[in-house]
Amino acid sequence: MNDKNAVTIIVFSGDLDKLFASFVIATGAAASGMKVNMFFTFWGLKLLQKEGAKPRGLDWMRKMFGFMVKPGPENRPLSKMNMLGMGPMMLKKIMKKSNLPSLREMLATAKSLGVKLIACSTTMGVMGIPKEILIPEVDTVAGVTSFLADAKESSFTLFI
Amino acid sequence: MNDKNAVTIIVFSGDLDKLFASFVIATGAAASGMKVNMFFTFWGLKLLQKEGAKPRGLDWMRKMFGFMVKPGPENRPLSKMNMLGMGPMMLKKIMKKSNLPSLREMLATAKSLGVKLIACSTTMGVMGIPKEILIPEVDTVAGVTSFLADAKESSFTLFI
Amino acid sequence: MNDKNAVTIIVFSGDLDKLFASFVIATGAAASGMKVNMFFTFWGLKLLQKEGAKPRGLDWMRKMFGFMVKPGPENRPLSKMNMLGMGPMMLKKIMKKSNLPSLREMLATAKSLGVKLIACSTTMGVMGIPKEILIPEVDTVAGVTSFLADAKESSFTLFI
Repeated sequence: MNDKNAVTIIVFSGDLDKLFASFVIATGAAASGMKVNMFFTFWGLKLLQKEGAKPRGLDWMRKMFGFMVKPGPENRPLSKMNMLGMGPMMLKKIMKKSNLPSLREMLATAKSLGVKLIACSTTMGVMGIPKEILIPEVDTVAGVTSFLADAKESSFTLFI
Repeated sequence: MNDKNAVTIIVFSGDLDKLFASFVIATGAAASGMKVNMFFTFWGLKLLQKEGAKPRGLDWMRKMFGFMVKPGPENRPLSKMNMLGMGPMMLKKIMKKSNLPSLREMLATAKSLGVKLIACSTTMGVMGIPKEILIPEVDTVAGVTSFLADAKESSFTLFI
Repeated sequence: MNDKNAVTIIVFSGDLDKLFASFVIATGAAASGMKVNMFFTFWGLKLLQKEGAKPRGLDWMRKMFGFMVKPGPENRPLSKMNMLGMGPMMLKKIMKKSNLPSLREMLATAKSLGVKLIACSTTMGVMGIPKEILIPEVDTVAGVTSFLADAKESSFTLFI
């Protein structure tokens, strides 16, 4: 068999529950020896943004967008039952009680397993996120052409 | 051609509209002779939970999560236009008028066509759902390793 | 290599942000010489509906559904931060400032690159959308069997 031994995941969502699912698949695949590409775009890119850093020189609209959606693994909402932050807080406590890793820990595990973290260049332009305010774990900044090349070499590709 | 004749669907969503889409694809593929794996995770797992059954011995947070998201095919919300349940009620009536099967009927059809219904073990732990309160139609309980094996053997894999 | 040089995208969402993502992938793939099938279903079908046209002879429920979700590229909400239309308005202005094309322009580009726009026949029945009120850019009306044939011939298939 000449099977492709890679997985590509477009992480479009910035929701805690969908990010968990993305990392469970990504780390599971990497642990089993597959090459994994995670392509963070739109709301998903917020995970890769440094928590303290603020974009500079943006117009008010981009500032407002950036202000409303907080960056980093600790600030992710839920896709359902968010309840002004109650939902994510509860889910995080439940995950901990179940001895499951946090999003921050999953990110670190993914890195140590060689998962490639890619930041979408188009989103960075639209959202006003320069490379300097991305976390150092990001492997590369790339666009749709790079994604297509990865997806073509993958056993399966998911949009999450 | 040595094409893979299987489909794997991760059913992450518990929304009526997305579940309909999942089952239309699953039953269509199975009817055309493809092997179909439906991997129910997170909110999607609620569909496979018995309607009357209550988890026992859970902490208050898990209880609250379980209380807020009702199980079973009759209690699925819509991803858009839910309107406190008005949306799903209307959609279900429209489906019936259009002579389309209900979610419950689609589940039965999927089973009769040999679609494999898999419950995600990680979600069961997090949500506090023991095997006993899953509906008997569930074929197996499995984790990410099993999903990866299925996805690798599939013509395409969807995250819904 | 006997790689499949096609992409199939199920456009289930009618949200502005997810439609942007769909068209960025679709036009990128088409520009690189891939065959692209976009299968518009459920909320996604609203994009292909003429803005002025009204369905005739529908029962009140279908009318209400049609009334609440406005058709056309200018009326798409955001999946997050919709804020009664403020979010989409801001995003559209940001896209323009970033010299990115609008949804309407992306649709035209997709057509000129040979992307195939397919309207889901099941959704048309459920939502009460006859062929006459679809935009002329639609290439064909088809169901799940046609989608499965396209997906089988695709390098990857996404559900967005």
